[in-house]
Amino acid sequence: MSDFGLFDAVLAAGPVRDIVSDAGWLRAMLETEAALAQAGAEVGLFDAASAQAIVDAAVVENFDLAAIGAGAAGIGNPTGPLVRALTRQAEDAGKFVHYGATSQDIVDTAAMLLSREAFAALDDELTEVAESLANLAQEHRDTVVAGRSLGQHALPTSFGYVVAGWLEAIVEVQKALRETEFPAELGGAVGTLASVGSSGPALRSAFARILGLADPRIPWHTNRLPIAAVATAAGSVSGVASSIAGTLISLSQTEIGEVYEEGPAGSGGSSTMPHKRNPIAAVSSFAATTTVPALVGTLLTSMAHQHQRAVGQWHAEWRTLSELLRSTGSAVHWLAESLRRLHVDTGKMAENLAIVGGVLQAEQVTSALVPVLGRLGAHDAVTACCRKSIATGESLAEILAADPLLSQHLTTGQINQLLDPVGYLGSAQFFTDEVLANYRKARQ
Amino acid sequence: MSDFGLFDAVLAAGPVRDIVSDAGWLRAMLETEAALAQAGAEVGLFDAASAQAIVDAAVVENFDLAAIGAGAAGIGNPTGPLVRALTRQAEDAGKFVHYGATSQDIVDTAAMLLSREAFAALDDELTEVAESLANLAQEHRDTVVAGRSLGQHALPTSFGYVVAGWLEAIVEVQKALRETEFPAELGGAVGTLASVGSSGPALRSAFARILGLADPRIPWHTNRLPIAAVATAAGSVSGVASSIAGTLISLSQTEIGEVYEEGPAGSGGSSTMPHKRNPIAAVSSFAATTTVPALVGTLLTSMAHQHQRAVGQWHAEWRTLSELLRSTGSAVHWLAESLRRLHVDTGKMAENLAIVGGVLQAEQVTSALVPVLGRLGAHDAVTACCRKSIATGESLAEILAADPLLSQHLTTGQINQLLDPVGYLGSAQFFTDEVLANYRKARQ
Amino acid sequence: MSDFGLFDAVLAAGPVRDIVSDAGWLRAMLETEAALAQAGAEVGLFDAASAQAIVDAAVVENFDLAAIGAGAAGIGNPTGPLVRALTRQAEDAGKFVHYGATSQDIVDTAAMLLSREAFAALDDELTEVAESLANLAQEHRDTVVAGRSLGQHALPTSFGYVVAGWLEAIVEVQKALRETEFPAELGGAVGTLASVGSSGPALRSAFARILGLADPRIPWHTNRLPIAAVATAAGSVSGVASSIAGTLISLSQTEIGEVYEEGPAGSGGSSTMPHKRNPIAAVSSFAATTTVPALVGTLLTSMAHQHQRAVGQWHAEWRTLSELLRSTGSAVHWLAESLRRLHVDTGKMAENLAIVGGVLQAEQVTSALVPVLGRLGAHDAVTACCRKSIATGESLAEILAADPLLSQHLTTGQINQLLDPVGYLGSAQFFTDEVLANYRKARQ
Amino acid sequence: MSDFGLFDAVLAAGPVRDIVSDAGWLRAMLETEAALAQAGAEVGLFDAASAQAIVDAAVVENFDLAAIGAGAAGIGNPTGPLVRALTRQAEDAGKFVHYGATSQDIVDTAAMLLSREAFAALDDELTEVAESLANLAQEHRDTVVAGRSLGQHALPTSFGYVVAGWLEAIVEVQKALRETEFPAELGGAVGTLASVGSSGPALRSAFARILGLADPRIPWHTNRLPIAAVATAAGSVSGVASSIAGTLISLSQTEIGEVYEEGPAGSGGSSTMPHKRNPIAAVSSFAATTTVPALVGTLLTSMAHQHQRAVGQWHAEWRTLSELLRSTGSAVHWLAESLRRLHVDTGKMAENLAIVGGVLQAEQVTSALVPVLGRLGAHDAVTACCRKSIATGESLAEILAADPLLSQHLTTGQINQLLDPVGYLGSAQFFTDEVLANYRKARQ
Repeated sequence: MSDFGLFDAVLAAGPVRDIVSDAGWLRAMLETEAALAQAGAEVGLFDAASAQAIVDAAVVENFDLAAIGAGAAGIGNPTGPLVRALTRQAEDAGKFVHYGATSQDIVDTAAMLLSREAFAALDDELTEVAESLANLAQEHRDTVVAGRSLGQHALPTSFGYVVAGWLEAIVEVQKALRETEFPAELGGAVGTLASVGSSGPALRSAFARILGLADPRIPWHTNRLPIAAVATAAGSVSGVASSIAGTLISLSQTEIGEVYEEGPAGSGGSSTMPHKRNPIAAVSSFAATTTVPALVGTLLTSMAHQHQRAVGQWHAEWRTLSELLRSTGSAVHWLAESLRRLHVDTGKMAENLAIVGGVLQAEQVTSALVPVLGRLGAHDAVTACCRKSIATGESLAEILAADPLLSQHLTTGQINQLLDPVGYLGSAQFFTDEVLANYRKARQ
Repeated sequence: MSDFGLFDAVLAAGPVRDIVSDAGWLRAMLETEAALAQAGAEVGLFDAASAQAIVDAAVVENFDLAAIGAGAAGIGNPTGPLVRALTRQAEDAGKFVHYGATSQDIVDTAAMLLSREAFAALDDELTEVAESLANLAQEHRDTVVAGRSLGQHALPTSFGYVVAGWLEAIVEVQKALRETEFPAELGGAVGTLASVGSSGPALRSAFARILGLADPRIPWHTNRLPIAAVATAAGSVSGVASSIAGTLISLSQTEIGEVYEEGPAGSGGSSTMPHKRNPIAAVSSFAATTTVPALVGTLLTSMAHQHQRAVGQWHAEWRTLSELLRSTGSAVHWLAESLRRLHVDTGKMAENLAIVGGVLQAEQVTSALVPVLGRLGAHDAVTACCRKSIATGESLAEILAADPLLSQHLTTGQINQLLDPVGYLGSAQFFTDEVLANYRKARQ
Repeated sequence: MSDFGLFDAVLAAGPVRDIVSDAGWLRAMLETEAALAQAGAEVGLFDAASAQAIVDAAVVENFDLAAIGAGAAGIGNPTGPLVRALTRQAEDAGKFVHYGATSQDIVDTAAMLLSREAFAALDDELTEVAESLANLAQEHRDTVVAGRSLGQHALPTSFGYVVAGWLEAIVEVQKALRETEFPAELGGAVGTLASVGSSGPALRSAFARILGLADPRIPWHTNRLPIAAVATAAGSVSGVASSIAGTLISLSQTEIGEVYEEGPAGSGGSSTMPHKRNPIAAVSSFAATTTVPALVGTLLTSMAHQHQRAVGQWHAEWRTLSELLRSTGSAVHWLAESLRRLHVDTGKMAENLAIVGGVLQAEQVTSALVPVLGRLGAHDAVTACCRKSIATGESLAEILAADPLLSQHLTTGQINQLLDPVGYLGSAQFFTDEVLANYRKARQ
Repeated sequence: MSDFGLFDAVLAAGPVRDIVSDAGWLRAMLETEAALAQAGAEVGLFDAASAQAIVDAAVVENFDLAAIGAGAAGIGNPTGPLVRALTRQAEDAGKFVHYGATSQDIVDTAAMLLSREAFAALDDELTEVAESLANLAQEHRDTVVAGRSLGQHALPTSFGYVVAGWLEAIVEVQKALRETEFPAELGGAVGTLASVGSSGPALRSAFARILGLADPRIPWHTNRLPIAAVATAAGSVSGVASSIAGTLISLSQTEIGEVYEEGPAGSGGSSTMPHKRNPIAAVSSFAATTTVPALVGTLLTSMAHQHQRAVGQWHAEWRTLSELLRSTGSAVHWLAESLRRLHVDTGKMAENLAIVGGVLQAEQVTSALVPVLGRLGAHDAVTACCRKSIATGESLAEILAADPLLSQHLTTGQINQLLDPVGYLGSAQFFTDEVLANYRKARQ
């Protein structure tokens, strides 16, 4: 792995960083040129020995990335200087370098290679995330916690249910990543492959097959759906990570304390506050996710390619795509790390559950009364008791039992049973089991 | 169709506007409550007559949208006041209204109903777009035009090829629209469906079946992939429209004039410039597309729901989703209209092709010389001749024939043949045929 | 105020909604046409009686908004049908309606009128917000609370300090709102005002003066800085609101409970959970803020106007600008309401402060030891004691006093003093006083 | 200047790239720590010799950027490892390194230093842009060109007028850049500067003064207006560049050809199409601008900092801000370059103006007839003649002269005069002169 930049360990962690680095792009562009040479020989445009010479020449070590980068200013993309350098490097075979292609063919195909590799890396890390979540969901299938809406305790649920919801989302995005298609791009200057005469379709099929990419019906120089597919799939991955990481951060707050990260020495501490236990992995994951949606938006805006080559929208894709994949990769990497570091404090969960007391199960009392008082009647009567309990600190059970109207319909025993959170998990465990069963079936 | 707002005819044209209007939301929310009542009776939570009473009551005409809207301020969403109004309307059956559900169940499910309906409308209009494009591609399969990159003439291509690229993109996004899943949402306050005891899973399955929606394994209150899927599919549709509409606008420019829109009287004119022939349908389409990507970004950002209900990210989805679908609908509607209005001026296409003269086919000369001069040698020699032709206005054929080096390798006859654009379409027609064949197969 | 839409009470609260409504736009466009008529007469293009007839005709009641909206499809903006309707309405003076102007002149100038009015409304609500915050900051100048970084208790601060930071931000954005310039737009079809001969500059000056707008040196048809200025100022207002509302939501969480909203009956409750006390005003404010940044981005993207009139970028501004102002208005309105509803629970603040115990003031102990142990030495020694305190539950004071190294440098009395949070507020109160003094000075 | 990355010459050209590079950040962070040491000594927290030792140690050459970057994973930002390294480097004075500060103080202040430097570089390049535009506007003050709206010829204007509109926008954004305030950040862990006792305010004032930054009334750890101010000013610069570069690209199209870039050898060509003359500088400028608006949106979204340190929103700023400034810098740099390379083809301007013939001046005929036929009557009559001219190719002058109605009111001489474009520039030159005068006054 290459050296970390100043912010990379925080915002560009994990394997995707190197995949989409400038060196990664150069490697992918060379792989593309090599495959084009092989394909050209295969369809008879030139001899196999020349193709092999190009393949041999097209290795990263032979090229000066900075010089190629500097040379890109001339025609506005790095393919030009790369082709010139490769032509020199391939010596006699040089005249067959880049045969039939245009700059965009090379950059677009390289972008697909990088995206495929980045998606594979994302998928691997998500597999680890999923396994962590499956274990957590199983272990805490019956751990009662306060369900929270708008930051307020609402009804009890189980921690396993909460985690199962995350697991289901991870399974869904992995499916999306795996279904993404990566088409080769080859069309020449305006998409007609005119310079290779009638060999165009055969050349492109061979090229795509060699690279293991899909072979499209027509060049996609200005149909940017392949880029949009990568961007939106990554955006969905990032969105799922933002929800999980954000909730972990929230559960780690000093006052809530239901989970905490315990990383290697020096992690999550503060230079001046030795007592702090920052959920730094979750924070780093969340930070990366906040930068992704706008990058997806930029790539969707850039779909407005005109004619046979865009006037800037194409160029705008390169760094934006790299940054999008990098950030998504970092978000997923740090999420996996956060889950590795995660400790669950079931004692704190129980303690927090008790804060609101029976009031949290008030809905169950309301539901029990609906048949006799109607929804609104039951709601209003129970609400009044809850407000009294909150205001006075008196237990809700006692207030309900003392209520002249409600005590006609519920015994003290019934009230206590209705206010027991463990008995009010509804289908939480059922849903958890369904998600786990589906996950395990898919894993087989 | 409801009355046009001041900008709606331009920016919210077509059927999607009404689908996602406030009245559309109200109708979908009522349909959701009605289905919930039917499902409740089906699984035995209450009697079928009560369910029927709720279904009968749940018609838009019974409700005052503005009053429900005003009432939404209390709990922060319109379900609360709607449920109160429906409860009153359903009279004795009122106590079974909204049974087991939470506000988000109703709004989320309604969002899926609206999205499904909007996607169906988009699909219909795209079918019309595709048919127009298929006809154009077929008709102009062999119409030679200047291929353009960075706004400059590059090589010749055919107008049919250009249009076939658009058709392929439309076919792809229609596939994406049709594959989108729309899951029902039902989980109660924290997703456990606790208030219906053990009936949760059966209730949700019935509910989903009645509405024709997918039945998810677990509530998606904070897993926003269903929203993201709608947003990104719509964003891709809009992106494709932006490319087509943008290119039509460009081709309509006074100096290019290869296509023009001819709408009904009063369309595309100017209040003060009677001679103008604005491509107003394409402009309206393009305008709508420019607003979509950022809305997709907002919905991806809003995926960061925390705990069992988000603190604002959920609320942010409602109008953003409506606006996104509305704008995409308008973009597609105006694109279909632009294609209906479109005239192709093949005379102008031929005239433009002649501007650069033989220089446009210079690549073919270069290619012919590669075997003898090498890529760079051929490129440099031909470039010099082109520059001379451009500078002096002298024909490229004559300059090439007079060049001491090149005339050793090419006869005048060969030069003339190499400079004929019609002979330099490469695989343009082949690709066009492939796209058309695939389109027609899918249409069957 | 016009009827609420289904989501308006939540997402479009406050006066800005009506200002930027379709009716608001119509009114502003008519005001613009009226001013143009007056200016035309003033510079002698036609007689004053005709101008007065136009002014008299240009009242909202005379126009059918839906018909004008429907008519906008023809030329792609509503000015065309509005001018035709006003021309009829003005009867004999009709021939002087819209004299010298182009559609964009009317819409752009109306956009400036609306923006100015919206900014005035924002400013009014922010003045109320500022006053609430100033009172809170003053009242809680000395209320010690846990300062939190990354969700963890860090060091003590005062609640007044926290609120003073918000106040300072409000003061700054009000300044930005007040400094925003709103220029009139008048240039005719391509900006030259050719149809009024040499009267152009005088006409525009009169027009701007009548409307109280700035008189630009040159039309800004394709220089969209005035739109960008409105968008970015509103975006900054929204960003400030997001920080304040988000923190209020966080402080309202059941486990933290340092503040809570108490609204009118029915506010912040839940249809099924009678015990909930949702910070619904803060949530509604926050929700609105999350939609704003992307809209700012869309307007910045739309600055890419080309030539003398954009091909869609202009049209894209109308609804985006309205939605942006509307959402910002709602965010500010709900923030003001949240502060009106806000209760501060100082008991809970003290209780939370005690959670971490002396560990929270560990930095002070570290600082005291730096002169003798060096920064790293002090940090490491104190960290070890803190970890022990957290792990064992033993008080930090006792652990420090028992430490062989540290007890050489600190007495028990010194330790107790260093661990007292009240003594460790640093400059919190000073900064609070500075902000309050500046605020009061500006208010005078 | 450091080595080019693969895409940097295209997308990160100009001086801003190095300013916001990782090395630039490191340098700025060290400058910040050095200033803090000087300020500490100045207010008596420690001796001047120690401060000087820290200043001497705080030079980039002493630090291993990659190691500091790698170390940032621990606490989630690079300040921690930087402070440890600087502490070692400063030897005995090490204990006074970072005195009173928190990580965010260093990163935020460094961000302000970088932004100030980037703005100065932007300002310099914009000064060059302005001078180019002023010369162009002056030179082409009277060059008649077709004014275009929606891509269609509308009325004549002058090229000088078009350019003057750009110049005015540049002058405005330079003003905005110069008025941006860059405040120092210094507050310690929670903003109270508690660890320096009562020296906080004095320490911060000295720190700010040494760095030449503004001294804020209160730390802005969670009030992100300084970041928003930088982002929105850069976004406005980029927006202005997008309009100018986009129009230059459009004017360069083969069919329009009114301007073209002529760069150094090898610029703007194509590897396979030697005849191309791509406006590559304008394209590179435009490409960079398309990525900026979403980055502004991300930074506005990130304003939602909570409590005394954000849970990710802060971290999200670093790369986003760098990328935003970098892209804006590249947009401006390439715009300056495009203008240096620009050639204006006045012959082509005249030729294009003749395409529509007299029809372009039809508005002037309409205006002349308003007094006798009314606006609608005049408009309809002239429209009919224009349509006939367009359809038949017959000159508009002859058609008008032959029209039974119109020929009653206009002589052939009057018609010819009304149809002369040179006579129909309105206030174009006046506005141009105004803009130039203002520009020159500001330059003095």
